[in-house]
Parts: sequence; C-alpha cells; structure tokens
Amino acid sequence: MSIITLTSDFGTKDTYVGVMKGVILSINPSATIIDLTHEIPAQNVAVGAWQISKAYSYFPAETIHLVVVDPGVGSDRRAVISQISDHIFVCPDNGLLSIISKESPIGNSVMIENDGYFLSHISNTFHGRDIFAPVAAYLAAGIEMSEFGPSVERLHKIKFSHIKFDNSQIEGQIVWIDNFGNAVTNISQQSINQILPNLELQISFAHQKIFGLCSAYNQVKTGEAMAIIGSSGHLEISVNQGSAQQLYGLSIGNFVSVNALDPWNNTPKS
Amino acid sequence: MSIITLTSDFGTKDTYVGVMKGVILSINPSATIIDLTHEIPAQNVAVGAWQISKAYSYFPAETIHLVVVDPGVGSDRRAVISQISDHIFVCPDNGLLSIISKESPIGNSVMIENDGYFLSHISNTFHGRDIFAPVAAYLAAGIEMSEFGPSVERLHKIKFSHIKFDNSQIEGQIVWIDNFGNAVTNISQQSINQILPNLELQISFAHQKIFGLCSAYNQVKTGEAMAIIGSSGHLEISVNQGSAQQLYGLSIGNFVSVNALDPWNNTPKS
Amino acid sequence: MSIITLTSDFGTKDTYVGVMKGVILSINPSATIIDLTHEIPAQNVAVGAWQISKAYSYFPAETIHLVVVDPGVGSDRRAVISQISDHIFVCPDNGLLSIISKESPIGNSVMIENDGYFLSHISNTFHGRDIFAPVAAYLAAGIEMSEFGPSVERLHKIKFSHIKFDNSQIEGQIVWIDNFGNAVTNISQQSINQILPNLELQISFAHQKIFGLCSAYNQVKTGEAMAIIGSSGHLEISVNQGSAQQLYGLSIGNFVSVNALDPWNNTPKS
Repeated sequence: MSIITLTSDFGTKDTYVGVMKGVILSINPSATIIDLTHEIPAQNVAVGAWQISKAYSYFPAETIHLVVVDPGVGSDRRAVISQISDHIFVCPDNGLLSIISKESPIGNSVMIENDGYFLSHISNTFHGRDIFAPVAAYLAAGIEMSEFGPSVERLHKIKFSHIKFDNSQIEGQIVWIDNFGNAVTNISQQSINQILPNLELQISFAHQKIFGLCSAYNQVKTGEAMAIIGSSGHLEISVNQGSAQQLYGLSIGNFVSVNALDPWNNTPKS
Repeated sequence: MSIITLTSDFGTKDTYVGVMKGVILSINPSATIIDLTHEIPAQNVAVGAWQISKAYSYFPAETIHLVVVDPGVGSDRRAVISQISDHIFVCPDNGLLSIISKESPIGNSVMIENDGYFLSHISNTFHGRDIFAPVAAYLAAGIEMSEFGPSVERLHKIKFSHIKFDNSQIEGQIVWIDNFGNAVTNISQQSINQILPNLELQISFAHQKIFGLCSAYNQVKTGEAMAIIGSSGHLEISVNQGSAQQLYGLSIGNFVSVNALDPWNNTPKS
Repeated sequence: MSIITLTSDFGTKDTYVGVMKGVILSINPSATIIDLTHEIPAQNVAVGAWQISKAYSYFPAETIHLVVVDPGVGSDRRAVISQISDHIFVCPDNGLLSIISKESPIGNSVMIENDGYFLSHISNTFHGRDIFAPVAAYLAAGIEMSEFGPSVERLHKIKFSHIKFDNSQIEGQIVWIDNFGNAVTNISQQSINQILPNLELQISFAHQKIFGLCSAYNQVKTGEAMAIIGSSGHLEISVNQGSAQQLYGLSIGNFVSVNALDPWNNTPKS
C-alpha cells in the first residue's frame, strides 16, 4: 500500500483537489490519498514549508507528500522529487522544503523533467493536476526517482527569521495562528530548555505579559490567556475556551519574547 | 475492513486532522477513515453530542467513531471507549455521548489508560493525535477494549433542555443551524405525532407564525418560509432556496413552539 | 475497485457528506469515495453543471459521479442515472448534466424509481443520503442500470448563455470565480483560436483593458492583472499573487470581451 498526502493553497470550493485525486487514481488505483490541508494562505510558501515540516513525520516511512504552493507555476521554476528522512516530497523547488531540510538532511533529489510521466496536455496554471499528481502516482506505483529527471544538488531555500537570544531572553515571532486562534511561535521547547533552563519565565507579546507556562488549557479561567508548549513543540499563546488571536488582535509576524525572571526579585533580568 | 469516523472542532485550515490520519495509518494501514465533520463550534460539546448522535447509525456495525471536542485536554478529565448499539465510540468523557446514550443503552465501556497504545510523546494540547487516534487504530486492528484500561460504570453526561408540552402545545428550541440556514429544532416528528396527533399545526418562532408542515421545499414560493420535518426526524424552519437563519436572524437556543389549531375556528387552542 | 465521486452544495459544517459515505460503505465496503467539492453555491444547478463538466474526465472510465444540487428535493422532480462518455452520473434530473451532455452524447439513462435500492425511510429533505448514495453504492457493486427504473429518453436541460461573436470580437461572461479570485469565463481557447486566429488580442471587462494573453502568472508584476488560458481551457482574468475578484470587484455574470487588435494601428477593429 502506498500513501500520498496532499498539501496546497487550493482551498476546497473548487474541484481542483478532487481532480488531482482522479488523476492519481487513474494511474494508481490502490493509492491511499490523505489531505493534510488545502488552506495554506494563497501563494504563501513560508506557511507551506512550516506546515509540512510539522506534519509529515506522523505518516509511515515511504509516504509521498505532494506539496503544491506554486506562485511560479508556468514559469521556469524547477519542480523536484526529494527524499528526506525516509519520506518522499514532490513539489515546486521554491523553498517549500526549507524547514524540513534544516532538521533532516536532504537525500536523493531529482528534477521533474520527463514528460512521459505528465498528463498529455500541460496547462499554464495547474501543474498540481498535470505534473505533480501523475508524478506522485507513478512514484507510488514504484517508478524509480531517477526515471523522472536528473539529480539535483541544491534545493531552493527561503530564509526564515531565527529566534534571537542571550542568557536571559529569547525573542521570536508568531509564525502561525491555528483554527482555535492559538498563536504558534517559532520558539521551541528545546530552545527554552537550553537557553533558560529551570527558570521562572515571563512571556511578553503585544503589550501583554504572562507569567509561567501552563500544561492544560483549563489551568486558567475561561477567557483568560496562557502560554503553553503546543502540539508542535513550540510556545503558543492561547486562551482557555477562546481565541488568543481575537482577544489580542494577534497576527503572523508579531514578536513574542520569553524572559527569565530574576529569582531574587521576580522581575525580568536585565 | 474497519472504518474509523472522525468528528472534531479542529476545522480544516490546520494539518491536525491529516496528522491524525497519518497516525492511524501508521498503526493500521488498512483502516478506512471517514470525516464526519471538523466544524463543530470550538469546544462546544453539546453540538458535538448532537451531531454524532444523528450521524453514527448510518455506518456499518462495528464502526469506530473518534469524537474529539476536548476543552479539558491536558487536565485530568477521563478518556473513554464505549460500546453503544453495535458501534464503538472513542472520546473524552465530557458528555459527548449524552444524547446517544439516552437513545440506546451504553454497553461495555473502559477508561483509556494504557499508554502502551499512545504515541511515545504526549503533548499538552493534542490528545486527538497522541492518544485518541492511536487507540482507535489499535481498536480497529482488533485489540480488545479491556486492554486499554479498567471498566467504567457511568459516563459523564451533560443536560440538554427538553421540550415542554401539554395537550395543545410543544415548546422546544433551535439546536443547530445547518449549511443552508435551516434551523433544526429539538422537536421530533415522533413527539408531534404523539402529543398533537392529526391536528392542524401552527409553528411560532421569532415573532413569526407558519401554518402546517410542508413535505418539500418547493411547496412554498422561492424565498418563503416553511416548517418541515428534516432529515434527522426533527422539525426544521426552512426557506425555499434561501436561508431561514438569515431571513429571520435565527440563532441556536431560540424558542420554537408548535400549537394545535382549534379545529372549530382555526386559532390556537388556549 | 469502484470509485464514487461526490459533488454537492452541502458544505462541510454538517455531517451530511460523511453520512452519505456511511450509507455507501454500509452497502459497498470496498468503494473508493472521493470528494469533488461540496461548496457549490446553495441550490445553484448551473454552477454544479459547470463544475462537474470540467472535472469528471480526470477520473477513470466507469467512475460513478454522484451530483446532488437539488432544490426540488421532495417534489416530483425525477432522479436519473445516466451514462455519458464512459462515466456514470447519478443526480436529480434538473439540468446538472446540461453542459456535459453538450460535449458528449448521452448514453443509456434510466429513472431512479426502484425503492428496493433506497434506504427504508425516505426523508423529505435529504435524498442524497436516502436515495442517491445507496443507488450509487449498488451501481458500484455491479447492479445493472436497468434494475433501478425505466429508460429515459430526454434529460432536463437548462440554458446557458452562449458566447456571441463576429469576425473581430468574442463576447462572453464570467461563469465562476475560484478560490484564488481568478475569474473564469465561458470563452474557450478553442473559440479564440477559431474566431480570432493568430491575432493580437485585447481583453475588456469591468472598464478594464488587458492586451494579450500570458502563459504564466509571474509574467506580470505582483498585483497586476493578466488574461490567461486557465486549467479548464477557458479564458481567465487573474492577478499575479492576488485576487482579480477583489481587485476589480468581479462577479459571476460580468461580461468579458476579446477583441482582435487592428494589425495596422493596434486599436480594436470596429
């Protein structure tokens, strides 16, 4: 059995995603196709890179992940197949693998060039249907990666803002706001543990301050805010049974800082 | 073949649902996974209880229904597996089975405690992925319920407002408004048949009155309102080719009453 | 293996679609069920007809396409099974096949009348669940079309506005606006090639003019508009990394014209 996951900015009102599944099943009737999400903000490669990096490892090894956020469709941007950490990614070479490839080394990668594995008519605007879906279906059917095109040495990468830190503070940003209005930051639990180990913490954002981390939403009253390590292992700002986004007007890109409180007087160390 | 249905308040913009499917397929590659809905209003256990109660019986016996509306995630709220009416439910023990269990007796139920069937790392905020999905996958693979934890005698229940009635009137409430703007009430066809049998009816809501029940939307003109027994067997307020919600500003919780018209003078009996 | 696609105006907030899948799997556990879209605008048969006509052919022959946009549910409108171009369509006979059947001849068609293939209780409002889903499941399981009801000679058709043209101009309309805000017209590449072959073109809409066709979104600057042949083979108005709908306030029904520029002085021929 082979699994193909789909991630895109196509939304769900069109038949775009369904049609890609039709193309896959026409080539490979036994593929199991799973939607990761189709609500990546339109053309937002950075969010696409974040989302696939946090999701792919929950699938079995050898899963094929089709990721189509493709503002350069129809231009000469490359398309690639890339093996990373026992998974296979099929996508435009526009930075969608930038985060995954920081965490796990990129293995064998090829350019998608052999149009014997494409639909016979290639549109200007929908390579998800005409190129990526059939390539994923043939891969899932056992065609070797080398059949699709020549090896690629380097993939295109986009730069993400890193956290900044010294021995008393970590400064990061909100990188995603989820369906519940939880604001996910790029400050990982690991970085908190390494930089500010065993210290009392103060989290600051949007002129707000929160003291300490919670481990369950209902450790604060309904409607109150907290900081919590979320399911991706990163610091999140949340509201018990409410939306942190709405309560504080948060947006992707807002700064969030974590300060160690001075253990002698409970104010942030300077 | 085993079927697992998914119901949650996770929405579709995140990869949360896709990741749960990855976890399930990693454990049980042959499971058939069906989304019931992921648009239960956030943390709304009552709506979750209503929706699963109206949907589950259309699936084959032995289907496993994963229902995750979980405001208490990370706290000490229990998680349960419960057998009801030849179906198996996996969910937090927070009232999600309150309506189903009024209609069908609860069978064998166990607490979910054996972390040998969980993911190795349990997050604070996403037990759907870390606990419920793997448990459902192992259940579907044939692991006995008793393996997951000790028996439970009573499940947590939430109280729903009942209809009130005398021999000339039934008073209920809107409990759901669907995608078309149809307002679904908690007044069942069965209760109308029992309490007001063979009588001419007047339906009142939001300062509006409707006479009689229709059996097809186009029995009134486009844009006009009607009362009709909807697909769940309950009274609904609808508008032909329009939205009753929008036309009348209806909300969940609004009162709706059904009165028998006095057969002598066609006014409601008092 | 049999594939059943689902297209409807049911949206995703209710369990309606999931329940239809439960009904299908109860009858035919091995069916592969694929969502095309459930966001056809409510009761909009014309959009349903357009969407299914552009999507179905990407599926394998013998695929069963269940299309439920059904304002006449519960009335005496007919329901049909129709074979077109090696595919099988199951739908209310309300015009949903009007576009497909202009492009490919309608083959064998029958009325859906044999209630031995329906659920035992038929609701007023949800024949998708009670009639169409079980019929599709039995079809996929190999039941002959003739078992479901008598032959039908003519299907109900709705009229679509056609393009108008002379030897220097084509006038059409916007028939769909996709998730990205691309405005899809009913002017096909084929008609442009036939009517205005090898000519320089000017596209006019909403007091805007665009010269020439692009073949990739990034052939204009970010935020700028273009005309492009989209993935359905029709002219679309698009904005690079933006929404043509938002930029110009476009709506379904707006007129779009394509004029041949006079090759001698680059103004539209009159």
